[in-house]
Amino acid sequence: MPDFPSSEYAARLLRAQAMMHAQQIDALFLTTEADIRYFSGFRTAFWQSPTRPWFLIVPRDGEPIAVIPEIGAALMRETWVADIRTWSAPHPDDDGVTLLANVLRGYASVGMPMGRASALRMPMLDFVRLRVGLESVDFVDATPLLRALRMVKSPAEIEAVSAICAIGSRAFARAGDLFSEGMALNAAFRDFRIALLEEGAEEVPYLVGAAGQGGYADVISPPTEAPLRAGDVLMLDTGASRHGYFCDFDRNFAIGHADEAAKAAYRTLWNATEAGLAAARPGRTCAQVFSAMAKVIGDTSGGIGRLGHGLGTELTEEPSLIGFDHTVLEVGMVLTLEPSMAIGADRMMVHEENFVLTENGPHLLTTRAAPELPVIP
Amino acid sequence: MPDFPSSEYAARLLRAQAMMHAQQIDALFLTTEADIRYFSGFRTAFWQSPTRPWFLIVPRDGEPIAVIPEIGAALMRETWVADIRTWSAPHPDDDGVTLLANVLRGYASVGMPMGRASALRMPMLDFVRLRVGLESVDFVDATPLLRALRMVKSPAEIEAVSAICAIGSRAFARAGDLFSEGMALNAAFRDFRIALLEEGAEEVPYLVGAAGQGGYADVISPPTEAPLRAGDVLMLDTGASRHGYFCDFDRNFAIGHADEAAKAAYRTLWNATEAGLAAARPGRTCAQVFSAMAKVIGDTSGGIGRLGHGLGTELTEEPSLIGFDHTVLEVGMVLTLEPSMAIGADRMMVHEENFVLTENGPHLLTTRAAPELPVIP
Repeated sequence: MPDFPSSEYAARLLRAQAMMHAQQIDALFLTTEADIRYFSGFRTAFWQSPTRPWFLIVPRDGEPIAVIPEIGAALMRETWVADIRTWSAPHPDDDGVTLLANVLRGYASVGMPMGRASALRMPMLDFVRLRVGLESVDFVDATPLLRALRMVKSPAEIEAVSAICAIGSRAFARAGDLFSEGMALNAAFRDFRIALLEEGAEEVPYLVGAAGQGGYADVISPPTEAPLRAGDVLMLDTGASRHGYFCDFDRNFAIGHADEAAKAAYRTLWNATEAGLAAARPGRTCAQVFSAMAKVIGDTSGGIGRLGHGLGTELTEEPSLIGFDHTVLEVGMVLTLEPSMAIGADRMMVHEENFVLTENGPHLLTTRAAPELPVIP
Repeated sequence: MPDFPSSEYAARLLRAQAMMHAQQIDALFLTTEADIRYFSGFRTAFWQSPTRPWFLIVPRDGEPIAVIPEIGAALMRETWVADIRTWSAPHPDDDGVTLLANVLRGYASVGMPMGRASALRMPMLDFVRLRVGLESVDFVDATPLLRALRMVKSPAEIEAVSAICAIGSRAFARAGDLFSEGMALNAAFRDFRIALLEEGAEEVPYLVGAAGQGGYADVISPPTEAPLRAGDVLMLDTGASRHGYFCDFDRNFAIGHADEAAKAAYRTLWNATEAGLAAARPGRTCAQVFSAMAKVIGDTSGGIGRLGHGLGTELTEEPSLIGFDHTVLEVGMVLTLEPSMAIGADRMMVHEENFVLTENGPHLLTTRAAPELPVIP
């Protein structure tokens, strides 16, 4: 039932424990879906329900301990996690806090994600109550540890991202059959979502996009009912998933015909992606890849703030391809290149590809976009 | 573009502000997708990306203030929120904290959700930094306020839940065409997901289920590739969504034939739902509805801990139909009835319906399940 064999999770644990030894962290205390799934293989859509908190403790020595609602026990037992402690949730006054305190009491230093991109997925009042009973425990930021750990993907993870990227590429290859002038944008979204499922995606947690004459104003909107018009550029950006791993890329299509500004922007972004692919080498930094792409785009950057990011068991992960991120690229990192630029005052365009970094440079996981803006006749 | 007219959000604001006056809370400080969407109408799949925090401040007097990454500005401008303050995110060292402090500094008492079912969707280190600059601000728990506010739905919200429940019911009505003996369970999931989209669902964030001989072992698992066998009970439980509102109900189907224990469990759960529908009246409590249902089920409750819950802009909302929840039912509450029971030692069954409470009692939003376990020949 879990997405990977136990050896995959055991290897992740060993890497984490080596870092915990080096950083003198006795245990990791995790509350979010991605962190808990990363170490346990526990995958369920039940995270959609905010009612119940879920906890995983990863000790520096020994195996992970799950402290979870009883409703999750059967599924957790199918993972490699052996130490599962449950309570009947929701509970009138103790939603796991006492169980949790009993586990954490033994540690001097407990690491939690507290930095960039982190969240506390438990009631703050419960976290305060937990700490009241654990004055001797030092809660420290484990963001750098988890970032370093999760940024470099295992072969199994790379295979998982590769599979969903191939699915996304096959769905985009059907664009000519799926989309046409006069079709409502929300119908285009629906049909593309169905195409992703037909091609093998298990879920489509992320599908955004836009259509507009010669470009679009926004890249994170849900679709309107407006029909596609000749001269529109249609963009769809999808984070479909399979076995808990995501693709994250987009494609642009001109409906009927394209104006010169749209064609030129497309070419510039395609070239910016080429520059990013050429710059991304082990030992280079995120900032260097960002600079190589930004140079092609010129000073017309759309203000999105970064030109790519990590990808894996979440739609966006660390690192960021941005000027201030000096993370050194390593073999096994899975990244997106996502150049964007303004077209005139009120439109923009965005491209995106996904790759894994090998010793020889990027290996594309997406079928590379056409070098010229494709036109759907 | 927003899902409702501005008057809907203005009415929510007025109700919240009346409660804030009564509870002496100067402003609400919100960080999660559901809370921010509730007050602003800002809806995007971009919440899938954990990279950027988003903030909405709802003052006791005046209009909401959005403090958000620049990438969301265009979409936020389409909502009724006029005061939008942005920064370029991700930022090297100030992801909205200074902007946020400038807004919150003026308040003596700031309410945040800190209780049951809440989360802090921002880095904890940033929250600590924020408070360091705001020693004069008292951060208090706004869970009771938000719970009371969101539990009672407006006519527009009821219409939204009703629409997605009708979509779910139409998809389940196609079960006889969709599912058959020999079909892999994950293919059944895929085809049901597609059916939901075809019937009008915009997204299917939640689809869980199981199949097993005469019942199933677990209700929150993703599907395996195991084929449906004669004698299996297939259960699918979906939280599809449209305009940001969810249905949450399931259906059971016997493949080929059903054994007597499965048929009997089905009847008991159907009767438990009837008892819940009969008990749910304005003025009664959640605990009373729970008791009415639990009495029908007897002492074979599956340990899930509650027999229903609120439903709306999240898959599960407050209140809970459980013995310790003495919330008084009010007209306009949208609830699920979700009785479950064990079948023998290692199997179970669960039923679920959705209704809105009217002065005369429950008005079902789902097409009521058949009183006898349906068999797919």
